[in-house]
Formats: sequence, C-alpha cells, structure tokens
Amino acid sequence: MARVVIALGGNALQRQGAASAAAQQAEAAATARQLVPLIKRGHQIVIVHGNGPQVGDILLHEEAFSTDEVPTMPLDSCDAMSQGMIGYWLQQAIDNEMRADGIRLPVATIVTQVVVDTNDPAFSNPSKPVGPFYETEAQAREAAEKRHFSVKPDANRGWRRVVPSPRPLTIIEKPTIEQLLNSNTLVIAVGGGGVPVVDNGQSLVGVEAVIDKDMSAAALASSINAETLLILTSVDGVRLHFGTPEEVELHEATVDQLTGYINQNEFAPGSMLPKVQAAISFVQAAPGQRQAIIASLDSAEAAVNGQSGTIIK
Amino acid sequence: MARVVIALGGNALQRQGAASAAAQQAEAAATARQLVPLIKRGHQIVIVHGNGPQVGDILLHEEAFSTDEVPTMPLDSCDAMSQGMIGYWLQQAIDNEMRADGIRLPVATIVTQVVVDTNDPAFSNPSKPVGPFYETEAQAREAAEKRHFSVKPDANRGWRRVVPSPRPLTIIEKPTIEQLLNSNTLVIAVGGGGVPVVDNGQSLVGVEAVIDKDMSAAALASSINAETLLILTSVDGVRLHFGTPEEVELHEATVDQLTGYINQNEFAPGSMLPKVQAAISFVQAAPGQRQAIIASLDSAEAAVNGQSGTIIK
Repeated sequence: MARVVIALGGNALQRQGAASAAAQQAEAAATARQLVPLIKRGHQIVIVHGNGPQVGDILLHEEAFSTDEVPTMPLDSCDAMSQGMIGYWLQQAIDNEMRADGIRLPVATIVTQVVVDTNDPAFSNPSKPVGPFYETEAQAREAAEKRHFSVKPDANRGWRRVVPSPRPLTIIEKPTIEQLLNSNTLVIAVGGGGVPVVDNGQSLVGVEAVIDKDMSAAALASSINAETLLILTSVDGVRLHFGTPEEVELHEATVDQLTGYINQNEFAPGSMLPKVQAAISFVQAAPGQRQAIIASLDSAEAAVNGQSGTIIK
Repeated sequence: MARVVIALGGNALQRQGAASAAAQQAEAAATARQLVPLIKRGHQIVIVHGNGPQVGDILLHEEAFSTDEVPTMPLDSCDAMSQGMIGYWLQQAIDNEMRADGIRLPVATIVTQVVVDTNDPAFSNPSKPVGPFYETEAQAREAAEKRHFSVKPDANRGWRRVVPSPRPLTIIEKPTIEQLLNSNTLVIAVGGGGVPVVDNGQSLVGVEAVIDKDMSAAALASSINAETLLILTSVDGVRLHFGTPEEVELHEATVDQLTGYINQNEFAPGSMLPKVQAAISFVQAAPGQRQAIIASLDSAEAAVNGQSGTIIK
C-alpha cells in the first residue's frame, strides 16, 4: 500500500474575500470532492493543510481584545487552535463527501507538535505571511505600527503580516500518525506546519512561529517513508519565466534541474520557492525511490496519473 | 488491561484570575503530575477535558473584532479551536512529566465530533456557563445586552454567559480512539464535550452549542466499554447538605441512592449535578461491571485506590 502525503495550499480552504466559517467549510467540501478519488485508490493518506490566513485571523481576534481576565494567547497556542478548527472542517467535509460516495473510513485529526531549533536564523528574520492582505503598503505599515508586528509584500499579491518560519526538524506525533495509517485511517496532521516547539533537553516548550507547511509535509513524508509527496496549490505546476511571454510549464524535472532554476531566482519566495524546496528535500533523501508532484488542487487525480502538474524525481 | 476515562474539570487548567497561556500551561503541568501515577499502572487511558472558560474566552475574542475580511467564527468552530489549544497544552505537559519520570508513551489529541439531536430542548434553554465570571448581575446583563448573548448565575460563584448544552448521542471518532488505546497510546479526546454536530441523514453539520464534558465522558466510557469513569474536580467528592452544618461526604453510593438525592435537590445544577448524572448514566448501563468515581484532582491516585472521593457502583 503506497503512502501519500498531501499538502493542501491556502486555496483549499480560504479564497480571498471569503473568510467566514461557512465559506471556508464550503471550500473544504470542494477540496474533499477532489480528494475522494485518491482516497478510493486505497492509499495510506496523510493530509497536511496550511493555516496562514486562519492563524493570522485568530491572532487579530486575540489581539483585538486583551484583559487580565481574557488575555491574548501566544502564537503557538493560536497555531494549535487553527489545527483544531481546520482539522474539524476538513474531517467533517471528507467524511461527508465519502459518505455521499458510499465509502466509510475513519478520518482523524491529530494535534501535532514539530521540533525546531532555537538558533534557527528565521527567528531574527520574520518571513512567513499570515492573516489578511492589506490593500496598500501604507495600510499595512499603519497596522504594523499600531499592533507591533512586522509586514512585508507577499509575492506581489499585497502586503501581509509576517512571523518567523523556522525549519522543521522532528515530528513529535509521528508514531501516532503511523499507527493510524497502518489501521486504515485517513489522517489529518501537522496542520499549519505543526505547532513549533523547542526541546531544551528536559522538556518541549512552544515557540512563537509558523512553520512552512510544505517543508513540514516533506519532513513528515520522509520520516514515514512515503512514496509520494503531493503538493496541491492554485497553479497547474512549476513554471519557468513566470509572468513573462516565455512562461513555460515543467512536466517533469530532476532535483539537479530544479536546484539550477532556484539559483537563477526562477521561483518566488513565500510562493513557489518553498514548494520546490520541499519537493527537493523529500526526493533527494532517497534517490530513485520517491516522487514529489506539484499540481493544481482541481486536477489532483490527473496529477497522480501523470497527466497534470510537475513530477520531481 | 483496564480502560479508564478521566474527565478533567475546569480547575485542571484555569484557576480564576490566571487565564494567560503560561498560567494555564503551568496548571496543565500540575495536572499531568497527578496523572502520571495512574499512567504508570498501564491502564488504557482517555482524558476528556472541559473547555468552559477557554471557549468563552475564544468567543469574546472572536466577537471583539469582526469584519468581512476577518469575521467571527461560530461556536462549533470555536469548540474545535479550544480542542486544539487545550489538547496541545495537555499532551505537551503529559509528555514532559512522563519524560521527567522516565516513561515514554505516545500521547495524541483527537479532534472529536459528537452527534446531538436538533430537537434537544437545550437549544431553547441555554444553560452551560462559558467564559469569565462577571462580578455583578448588572455587569453581566450589560455585557449580555451589548453582545447579544444570555447570562445566568453560575452555582453561586457569580454570573456567566450561557450557551445551549444538548445531550451527547454518538461519538464520531470512537473507532480512532479505540484503535489508539489498543496500541498503547494515551488519548486526549472529546475535549470540551466534543464539537456538537447534527446528522441530517446525508451529512454532519456543526451546531452552536457546548456539550457537558462529564456527560460526553460518560457516553464515551460506555461506548468503549471502560471499567472506570473517573471524574476529577475541585472538591473531594460528592457531599450531601452542601454548605450547611450537616454537610457530609459520601464515600460510596449506589445509583438508587444518588437518584434519590437528586430528587431531593441535593446537587447544584451546572456544578455537582451533571457529574452525578454522568456517573449514574455510565454505571447503570451495565450494572455490576462498572464504577464511576468523583474525586479531587489532587487525590486522583488515592481515589483509584478507594482511599478518597465517592465511588458509585
């Protein structure tokens, strides 16, 4: 039985301007319909979702009202909240869509902690966008000053709050994830890249950051020896010369080719770059035995059949 | 191997006036230290925690700031957020305390949905207290009017917001919980009584409510055939004539005796009454095979040894 880790991009849940729970649950249902054909193949599947828009929204709510009696929760606790909320939406949507298709399979969301390094350079250079887009740089800078956070432009789509995004090292709940996969359960885990924790030698302690979910999905896929890492996003696959008349889609690429393109700055940081890096890190750890696929959520099944997206071997 | 379901009261995480994440995580660590001796016995353990203070706080944050771009999440999504956050705190605290004691055991938080009946009378009579206490009735009524919610006095401890608390019927994630118990994993599940959903015949749909965690713990304990339901709270056990000079602690009681005391209005609604009702519903479903114990969190181990608390058989 093949093991597949599916990383779901932000568009799998929240489209810009549709942030209500009802709208996000409707997106989750559409996403679940795309996943059912893959589930029917009988693979062992782990779903890793992003949480950028949602954890940013939770933070804004937490910060908007803060008293001694009802204080603001720190980012690691907000990460865990987002895992609970998004996991609930996804497990319910997948359950409902499987039922409509006559399939019954347990679906479980596992609250997941991921160890990071306190000395990770990311802590002094916040880069991961979270929360809503600001229309202008001026609006972003005003919000940043008022609420004491950092903002940066996000891949030419607007300005957003940014938080540290350290590299994932170890997934604490890996034994539970494997246990459930082995007993035919569809697992939702490492949501939002996992709750970042450091190991001080005696205990785990949460830290305020958001790990890139594609990097965490790659780390999970490696550690459970998955055959396929499927990164689903809003575009058809990896493109070169993006946004120019020479734009071209890659149907297949090697790790060496992609590394070359990265050195030529072909991929946007915070957008396609981390997906390509995640794919490379997964594939190169066991050459010849693994594949990563970067594809559109709307053609997930075609991508697994080799008819869409970019395959990295 | 005995199966034990442990229901943790609100005091296991949040003491009044200590609502920061750091304070609640310190309480979670103290709670974990009480649980380690039980874990060392090798029982199959499920922990069901409450979420009254926490989900009320999340709601207040969600409602304090609400725009089209960053809208307020409904109560079922907030329930799921609280499962993620509290589950994270507990699993980390238990992991750290076990490590200090030289034990390694997987700990997993399962996001849990619980089916309720749309026609449950609770929906027209909100009764479950959530969030912070208001000092005076006037302050409570002012907040209630401003934010469109209901308030009631909470067991003579002050005024609080109240939400519907329907009866739990079915635990959707039961197969996953049993699977993990059978593979020697300590499970945190049905947090806050579970996310309430209704089954409309085709799909599950979340509803805005908070299920009583003791009733859900009893429903879970029954459905997985646990031997013991251990309800840990802030008092030593069940008392008769509470708050009077004739106050007396019950060391052992039968279902019939407790039913009689309920009819004499011995137990406070929203406080000891739901715990006694949960204990009765668990024990009477399989007479002679099950025991429920209501005891203080600080004497959990003594309670299981029959040296503290109230045993219901």
